[in-house]
Amino acid sequence: MSTDRTALDALLDASVVGHVGLVAGGRPLVVPTAVARDGDTLLLHGSTGSGWMRALAAGADACVTVTALGGVVVARSAFESSLHYRSAVVFGRCRRLAGDEHLRALDRFTDKLIPGRVAEVRRPLAKELAATMALALPIAEWSLRISEGWPDDPPEDVAGDAWAGVVPLTTTYGDPRPAPDLRTGIPVPPSVVGLGRAPDQGR
Amino acid sequence: MSTDRTALDALLDASVVGHVGLVAGGRPLVVPTAVARDGDTLLLHGSTGSGWMRALAAGADACVTVTALGGVVVARSAFESSLHYRSAVVFGRCRRLAGDEHLRALDRFTDKLIPGRVAEVRRPLAKELAATMALALPIAEWSLRISEGWPDDPPEDVAGDAWAGVVPLTTTYGDPRPAPDLRTGIPVPPSVVGLGRAPDQGR
Repeated sequence: MSTDRTALDALLDASVVGHVGLVAGGRPLVVPTAVARDGDTLLLHGSTGSGWMRALAAGADACVTVTALGGVVVARSAFESSLHYRSAVVFGRCRRLAGDEHLRALDRFTDKLIPGRVAEVRRPLAKELAATMALALPIAEWSLRISEGWPDDPPEDVAGDAWAGVVPLTTTYGDPRPAPDLRTGIPVPPSVVGLGRAPDQGR
Repeated sequence: MSTDRTALDALLDASVVGHVGLVAGGRPLVVPTAVARDGDTLLLHGSTGSGWMRALAAGADACVTVTALGGVVVARSAFESSLHYRSAVVFGRCRRLAGDEHLRALDRFTDKLIPGRVAEVRRPLAKELAATMALALPIAEWSLRISEGWPDDPPEDVAGDAWAGVVPLTTTYGDPRPAPDLRTGIPVPPSVVGLGRAPDQGR
């Protein structure tokens, strides 16, 4: 367990997707969704037609969990083998954003997913804004778990013949593939070029 | 939405980690955990001291969501930009496994995480089995969403100057790093060599 807010922010900022939990009809429901951070707020967004978004907008308790895998811990026994990971849980209730706050949140999602993209595309249309809901969850009640380090085998296993170590897992962007209907003469924009240059995002 | 059971199995088999939702104290809780499939059963495992594992073993409703990202969809507008993903949701109640079923489940987790590793390491000790709980969730009530394909921009945006396409995201294993306390002369085992040769796991 960690109480390091900087480490929390680093995880939230590096992760494209989180898993939102809520209680629906008395049962748990877990939905993957894009996440973005704006200071002390975790942002969610989705369609105004989404049932779970509407439930959260109406004040349902939410639990948003964001997890990044870093590698496989290969111990000398199955029991001690595990994963390197970072996982954050944020609990609370969401507030639906309107007006400028709504627009600002959508821009944050766009520039989170594809840094620099907001400046390259047209502004959202009124009908697009009307179809999209943005929610703000305060980053107030949270926990963070970080699992790292080497296998922790007991001496009798260390003395044996089994290998031990860590195999890193990395997520990287591949080469951009242009859409079939892309008009000729439109170059790959700086935002997309930048994705390929990004370091491992812990995704 | 997809009803393709083969596609569901492919996602579950390619994914190391899922997110388990349950209701705890009337509020939602979402926990990341390793998942493995055994036929029509989704397996979970963890410490017998884990509160959420014990709640699930006691019959709490569970929702296990497994998500794999495939790429970033760069549309000509922010509104149409999105992600390629596959996401499965399995609902139900878990059954705690005992005896041979317990042991078989633990072996499945080990060979899921590091294929072939079970044959390379000693068998679990009685105290290790006593410290570990394995749960079986029937793959009966489930849903699957797959988002793929090219940006779906309206004609007026296609006619404009913005680029559109897809940037693939891939997760790969890096070179194995031996533990600092590894005894000399122990080679990297076939299971670990195999990880590096695995195709993209959709993780």
